[in-house]
Amino acid sequence: MVKIVVDAMGGDHAPGEIVKGAVDAVSRRDDIEVILVGRQDAVEKELDKCSCPKDRIRIVHASEVIETEEPPVNAIRTKKDSSIVVGMNLVKNGEADAFVSAGSSGAVLVGGQVIVGRIKGVERPPFGALIPTEKGVSLLLDSGANVDARPSHLVQFARMGSIYMEHVIGISRPRVGIVNVGAEEEKGNALVKETFPLLKACDDIHFTGSIEAREIPHGGADVIICEAFTGNVILKMYEGVASVLVDKLKEGLMSSMRSKLGALLIMPALKKTMKSFDASQYGGAPLLGLRGLVVKTHGSSKAIEVSNSIIQCVTFKEQEINEKIKASLLVPGKSANQE
Amino acid sequence: MVKIVVDAMGGDHAPGEIVKGAVDAVSRRDDIEVILVGRQDAVEKELDKCSCPKDRIRIVHASEVIETEEPPVNAIRTKKDSSIVVGMNLVKNGEADAFVSAGSSGAVLVGGQVIVGRIKGVERPPFGALIPTEKGVSLLLDSGANVDARPSHLVQFARMGSIYMEHVIGISRPRVGIVNVGAEEEKGNALVKETFPLLKACDDIHFTGSIEAREIPHGGADVIICEAFTGNVILKMYEGVASVLVDKLKEGLMSSMRSKLGALLIMPALKKTMKSFDASQYGGAPLLGLRGLVVKTHGSSKAIEVSNSIIQCVTFKEQEINEKIKASLLVPGKSANQE
Repeated sequence: MVKIVVDAMGGDHAPGEIVKGAVDAVSRRDDIEVILVGRQDAVEKELDKCSCPKDRIRIVHASEVIETEEPPVNAIRTKKDSSIVVGMNLVKNGEADAFVSAGSSGAVLVGGQVIVGRIKGVERPPFGALIPTEKGVSLLLDSGANVDARPSHLVQFARMGSIYMEHVIGISRPRVGIVNVGAEEEKGNALVKETFPLLKACDDIHFTGSIEAREIPHGGADVIICEAFTGNVILKMYEGVASVLVDKLKEGLMSSMRSKLGALLIMPALKKTMKSFDASQYGGAPLLGLRGLVVKTHGSSKAIEVSNSIIQCVTFKEQEINEKIKASLLVPGKSANQE
Repeated sequence: MVKIVVDAMGGDHAPGEIVKGAVDAVSRRDDIEVILVGRQDAVEKELDKCSCPKDRIRIVHASEVIETEEPPVNAIRTKKDSSIVVGMNLVKNGEADAFVSAGSSGAVLVGGQVIVGRIKGVERPPFGALIPTEKGVSLLLDSGANVDARPSHLVQFARMGSIYMEHVIGISRPRVGIVNVGAEEEKGNALVKETFPLLKACDDIHFTGSIEAREIPHGGADVIICEAFTGNVILKMYEGVASVLVDKLKEGLMSSMRSKLGALLIMPALKKTMKSFDASQYGGAPLLGLRGLVVKTHGSSKAIEVSNSIIQCVTFKEQEINEKIKASLLVPGKSANQE
C-alpha cells in the first residue's frame, strides 16, 4: 500500500478537482491510500459528492493556505498550519511516501528541501518536468529549482534523471543530453564546458553529448540537462510558442466562410493528433533527491492530472527510486562531488 | 548612395539566390550599390541570367569559401582570399558601408570583430535576431555572440537594441525587457539580479522589467535582453516547437478523408495567417556595435531574404545608427562601463 498526501487546497481548481482526482486514483488502483490535506469542511463537502472506497481516503485538517504570490521561504516558515507544511510533515514523519501539490511551486520547492529534506549526498534537488516530444516524452531537469547550478549538480541531475526515466517512465538506457548552443564539444558557456567532460566520464549513464534546443521538441534526448534558468526558458518557450501558433491557427480558420467549413471537417482529427502531444498522462514534475517523493502538478491541473500524478508516485515507490538514487551516489570513483 | 557588400558564396542557395537577391535590391531602390564578393566566374554566370542596372552592381573576386563547419577563428586567419574576409575588408577600408552574408555565423562573428572592428567603447558586439511575435516583431539580443556576457555588456545590448528598434524598425520608445524566470524583481540568476538595477538606472531606454519566456512570442517586449546562451535557446526553441507543431498539424490533416477535404478548404486562409507570423521581411540578424554594419541572414535564405537584408542596411545607414550608438556610449554618468 502506497500512502500519498495530496494538497487539497493548491491550484486553480482546488479543492473540487483535486478531490475528484484523488478519488479517481484510489478507484483506479487498490494499492493506494490518499490523505487529503486542507480545510476539513471544504474538503469534506467535495468528498461527499463522490462515491469512492472511503477506507482508503481520509482528510487531515490544515487551516491555512499558501497563495501562489507569497514569498515561499517566509510562507513555509510562518504558515505552520498550511496544507503544504502539514502535508510535507506527514512525509517527513514517515506517515506517507509522497506529496502531490498543484499549489505554489516556490513553496513546494522550499518545503521539499526544508521539511522533507534531501537524501544524504544529494547537493541540489532539481525539478524534473516531463515535456511532450514528437517521439513521446522527455525529462527536462532542472526545470525550476537551481538557477545558478554548478557542474557537480548537473552531473547529479543526469544520474537522477536517468534513473527516473528508466524506472518510472520505462525507457531503457535513456539518452542524456546537455543543453548547448551547438553540437560540437568545444561549444558552450563556462558551465557547459566544465560539465561536459564530467558527464562523459560517467559510465552509469548513457550520455549522448550536447543537444541544441531545436532538437528538444523532436525528442533528441530522453533526459535533458541544464540549470534551472535555461530549463525555465525552455519550458516557457514551449508554452508560449504553442499558444501563439494555436491562436494564429484559429485566426486563420475563422477568417473566411470557406475556412470555417474546413475547420468543422478537420477538428476531430486535429484534436486527436494534438492529444498525442501532451505529457500530462505521465504525471507532474517530480522534485528529485528528497527523502520522500514530492510532485508538483500544473497550477491549472484538473482531476485527471492530479490522478495521474498520484499514480506516478506509486511507480516511484514500487521501483524504489530513492534507493537507486542513493546507490548511484555511492558508486566509487564516480561521485558527483568529485568536482 | 549606400554601398553594400554581399557575400555571394555564403548559404545553402549560393551563389544563385544570393545574386538574385542583390539584383532584386538594386532594382527596388536606386540609392543602393552592391558589391558581390565571390568566385568571379560563378557569380558572373548567375548575374548574366538577370537583367538589372549593371552600373550599380559589380563583382569583386575572392577565390576561397569558408564552409559552415570550419572552426571560425582559424578560417578567418587562414582563408585570406575568402568571400567573408575580402568582403569585410572592403567595409573596413571604407569602400562599403555594410556586409551581408548567409554563410557561417561563427566566421561572420569573428570576422566582424577582428576585421571590421568594434566601435570604441563597445565591449561586446551582440547578434540581434528579429523574431516574429503576435504583435509584430521583437529584437532578441544577444542571440548568438557572447555566451558568458557580463552585466555591463547586457546594458550596452539594451541601449544598442533600443536604438535599432526605434530607428531601423520604427517602434517609438521600444520596451526593453530582460529575460527572467519570473516577473518579480527578486527573481533570477546572478547575472540577471546584477543587471536588473543597472537597466533600471538607465534613463535613455524604456526598461519595463523582467520578461518570462512565455511572453516573448506574445510580444511582451520590443527589445529582449539576455546573454547568448539563453538567446540561442529562445531562438532554437522557437524553430523547434513551431516545426513539431506544424508536423503534428499536417499529420492530423492527413489522417482521414474528412480531414483531407477540410485541409483543402482551410489552406489558403492558413497560409495567409501564417505568413503574418514571419520576421524575414525585416531583414537578417545585425551584429551591432561594429564600425560598419554586418548582417547575417539565415543559411537557408532565398533571394527575398537577401534582398530584405540589403534594404535593412540602407535604413541603418540613413538613420546613422552607429553615430547614435556612439552618442549613447558618451552620455555622462550613464556609461555601460560603470559596472
